[in-house]
Amino acid sequence: MSPSNIEIAQAAHLHPITEIAEGLGIPDESIEPYGRHKAKVALDYLAGITDRPRGKLVLVTAVSPTPAGEGKTTTTVGLGDALNRVGERAMICLREPALGPVFGMKGGAAGGGHAQVVPMEDINLHFTGDFAAIGVATNLLAALIDNHIHHGNELGIDLRRVTWRRVLDVNDRALRDVAIGLGGPGNGYPRESGFDIVVASEVMAVFCLATDLADLKERLGEIVVGYTRDRHPVRARDLDAHGSMTAVLRDALAPNLVQTLEHTPAFVHGGPFANIAHGCNSLIATSSALHLADYVVTEAGFGADLGAEKFVDILCRESGLRPDAAVIVATVRAMKYHGGVNVPDLADENIAAVRKGCANVRRHLTTVRETFGIPAVVAINHRAEDTDAEVAALVDEVAAAGGRAVVARHFAEGGAGAEELARAVVELCDEPSELSFTYPDEAPLWDKMRAIATRVYGASDITAPTSVRNQIRRLQEDGYGGLPVCVAKTQYSFSTDAKLRGAPSGHVVDIREVRLSAGAGFVVMICGDIMTMPGLPAVPAAASIDVDEDGRIVGLF
Amino acid sequence: MSPSNIEIAQAAHLHPITEIAEGLGIPDESIEPYGRHKAKVALDYLAGITDRPRGKLVLVTAVSPTPAGEGKTTTTVGLGDALNRVGERAMICLREPALGPVFGMKGGAAGGGHAQVVPMEDINLHFTGDFAAIGVATNLLAALIDNHIHHGNELGIDLRRVTWRRVLDVNDRALRDVAIGLGGPGNGYPRESGFDIVVASEVMAVFCLATDLADLKERLGEIVVGYTRDRHPVRARDLDAHGSMTAVLRDALAPNLVQTLEHTPAFVHGGPFANIAHGCNSLIATSSALHLADYVVTEAGFGADLGAEKFVDILCRESGLRPDAAVIVATVRAMKYHGGVNVPDLADENIAAVRKGCANVRRHLTTVRETFGIPAVVAINHRAEDTDAEVAALVDEVAAAGGRAVVARHFAEGGAGAEELARAVVELCDEPSELSFTYPDEAPLWDKMRAIATRVYGASDITAPTSVRNQIRRLQEDGYGGLPVCVAKTQYSFSTDAKLRGAPSGHVVDIREVRLSAGAGFVVMICGDIMTMPGLPAVPAAASIDVDEDGRIVGLF
Repeated sequence: MSPSNIEIAQAAHLHPITEIAEGLGIPDESIEPYGRHKAKVALDYLAGITDRPRGKLVLVTAVSPTPAGEGKTTTTVGLGDALNRVGERAMICLREPALGPVFGMKGGAAGGGHAQVVPMEDINLHFTGDFAAIGVATNLLAALIDNHIHHGNELGIDLRRVTWRRVLDVNDRALRDVAIGLGGPGNGYPRESGFDIVVASEVMAVFCLATDLADLKERLGEIVVGYTRDRHPVRARDLDAHGSMTAVLRDALAPNLVQTLEHTPAFVHGGPFANIAHGCNSLIATSSALHLADYVVTEAGFGADLGAEKFVDILCRESGLRPDAAVIVATVRAMKYHGGVNVPDLADENIAAVRKGCANVRRHLTTVRETFGIPAVVAINHRAEDTDAEVAALVDEVAAAGGRAVVARHFAEGGAGAEELARAVVELCDEPSELSFTYPDEAPLWDKMRAIATRVYGASDITAPTSVRNQIRRLQEDGYGGLPVCVAKTQYSFSTDAKLRGAPSGHVVDIREVRLSAGAGFVVMICGDIMTMPGLPAVPAAASIDVDEDGRIVGLF
Repeated sequence: MSPSNIEIAQAAHLHPITEIAEGLGIPDESIEPYGRHKAKVALDYLAGITDRPRGKLVLVTAVSPTPAGEGKTTTTVGLGDALNRVGERAMICLREPALGPVFGMKGGAAGGGHAQVVPMEDINLHFTGDFAAIGVATNLLAALIDNHIHHGNELGIDLRRVTWRRVLDVNDRALRDVAIGLGGPGNGYPRESGFDIVVASEVMAVFCLATDLADLKERLGEIVVGYTRDRHPVRARDLDAHGSMTAVLRDALAPNLVQTLEHTPAFVHGGPFANIAHGCNSLIATSSALHLADYVVTEAGFGADLGAEKFVDILCRESGLRPDAAVIVATVRAMKYHGGVNVPDLADENIAAVRKGCANVRRHLTTVRETFGIPAVVAINHRAEDTDAEVAALVDEVAAAGGRAVVARHFAEGGAGAEELARAVVELCDEPSELSFTYPDEAPLWDKMRAIATRVYGASDITAPTSVRNQIRRLQEDGYGGLPVCVAKTQYSFSTDAKLRGAPSGHVVDIREVRLSAGAGFVVMICGDIMTMPGLPAVPAAASIDVDEDGRIVGLF
């Protein structure tokens, strides 16, 4: 049996993190070590290197995934390692894993096989405490809201219109809908509320979009927590909450430096959900990395319809980041799935299904190259059971659409398996390109949503119930019309129906709900069913995770 | 105006934590640095030094406190510094502060004035993430319970008899009583539950009583989370939860090393509430420190009736720790309060009230010396407004009871102000002594509770409603009769009535509720009203805590 991810990670020989930092030219006094293999890099140091030349930015995105995921993180790691192997100076930027899924179904999120960031147990468990800080900041704000109401409610917050929810980094369906403040007057006013997972919080999105501490505080102050009876928004700053929230987050805002199995430097920092939020690691990490390396490889959550679209229309628009190339991760397995094969049969060779399913990768490739204007290559994340004929079919179908697909074997071989991909990326980065957005800033919110649906999802139109239309109109009138739209929808399909595989066209996208994230600076449009608090499966990973007699973590996958 | 705690702390010159460790003889490879001034000391290193000679153990306890607290932590720090100044090798062991109170009324808990552990902002905010880990372990277990019920409830857990509660490290009264699992079948079965603050959790108590990782896992497995319909206990191990809970807590279990303003080494580790739990820092920290220094000063929460009693009857009984001396912290202010003066008038000189209030300190002194058999001295934690005549009255009243009171000025002067106290403690440690418990192991639970009430609280008897008596009888029958009792009651009085000051006698203690902490290994008896989730005041500290333009935390007191 081949070794598990954690076995490979625990057998690795790591360099001291001080050496990794030294390799990037970061002076010793500008890192805060967390143990021997993790460190935070001081914000004031990073603020001082912005006049250095900027490296090339490579965005790793993917086809519409199967439930197992197609290996974006793994490919990001493998590509970073391979770039260093072919003689470039590369580093990678990733999101931090959420604890909830580690104990649920998904397991760890630090890459896999021979393409991982390490120490993998630390990164998957508490790491440097960033998510804990984000949880405290969110829950402190929640406590201040109910406390304000309890002590006289001077701001006149409408108990029925508190929109701020609490968070935990645990998959816990029982907390999705709760009634709080029960038990009598001493416990405040009863009301309905709920908990989200930390990664789905607006504080997480704010944290990942902030340019520095001052901007973080400003954004936290702008967060709308609810409304008065006459529908005036109540902000975190009205509760004097943003100062202490910033204090809670101060240390967390410095990016975390770790390494891959092959000692490529990696920032692993922040981790907003890619459905409800924008799905990219912190802006501070990515923009700083560009001044520390010649190539920076980063990933955006889920398929290109979600992650890449938000990377472009939210993060790039707001920050000025410009990707020089994109990698679209595809698997033979996912192509068969999109070609109509059901999960139990995915291991069987089925060339016709691969060809049929390639409609999905072609749609994503077109979006990235034509809609966004980013030079792109398809990376076939190779799995042991893929047959040569299936791989050839995938390469062929991409070529037929004027694209290029490269086989990458980093899972099994580490960076050596992704050298061809690395060379392809270096070539792409030399191509001239100009980023274009899906919609202009000044388009009304409704038109922005329609542009995403028609240009990226292949939909024919969008609809919404009258109440949602009124809400959108109100946001427009309240001055939020200039914000970008952050779509929350299923990652499994271009449509809002998870079962609609391939590259559906002509479908209609129904907006079910709209939420303002005034601190993050976007308007979330929820299309279809979206879960902001996952549940645990019947047999959760928690049942097999353990500590052995030598104090080693086992059973984490 | 004299500088605030945080101003003093931020002006301090700290030694690198590697130097502090070196001073204790801990090799570099056995510490995990968290930044430059905090480190965790490896458990395997500490397991290897148990054959070294044991230092003297000094317990710092206090009179029944006023709401402001009497300065136990400050005195622990000052005494540690002073012991080093008079030529001894001392270190101190403290509890970690809870985040909730930092943003509420109490503020920080890392000492005060010139007697603090530093870096004080870090220690008061997230520190090394221990409490976050304890929160995750607790909430993971909760999620596993509701998930088990949702997926078929094979164990037959009675939805009405789930006793395990979730936790947050935020003061949030709205979460004391909640209804969870609302919103339809996908969110599980609706039931009543609630949240406690992290420090009130059984996992915190387990964490602080565990001797090593294996013991931690064993105890976590024993936690009773609820009952079946026919009243059989359901344990964490029945849910396969204890392995992953141990994995979550693995790194946290290594003690945190920091320093005082005068560079005395300090373990700051764990922090169970002194009302609902046993109120002492982790056993691992204290027992390890005894092999690293000649004198170890530690504190136990609240007055000697709560903290010292539990230190002796729970921690010492279980672990074999034996304090060589005790310091009872008293203030002129508290004596006036116990003498009947109300809070607004406490700044006025009132010698008669001091004398009258000294009944409180004398009772505690008698408990510590006679009931527990620990040689003890009273430390008068001096405040600027204390008059010489008031101090003299306090000294005199203690002397009249055959005791000794020493003035300590560490708040204003640092260790130099507590040298007389240090010398008194060194003398006490040379006195022969033998620890005695309030009750024998084999006494029934009811008799244990009565022994505490009559011997320590001065009560005439205990009472309980029939339902509670039945519960105690059932625990006795179920084999938990051999466990010690952990009393949850107000810290402000020897009685269960917070308003009954001084040294009341002949009162009756009513047991309102009984909770089994099978993992921690004690039975909690709740007497009177006890809050396991605090609320925020009308103007919480959070409103003034902030980050300034240089990224410094301000407004933390």
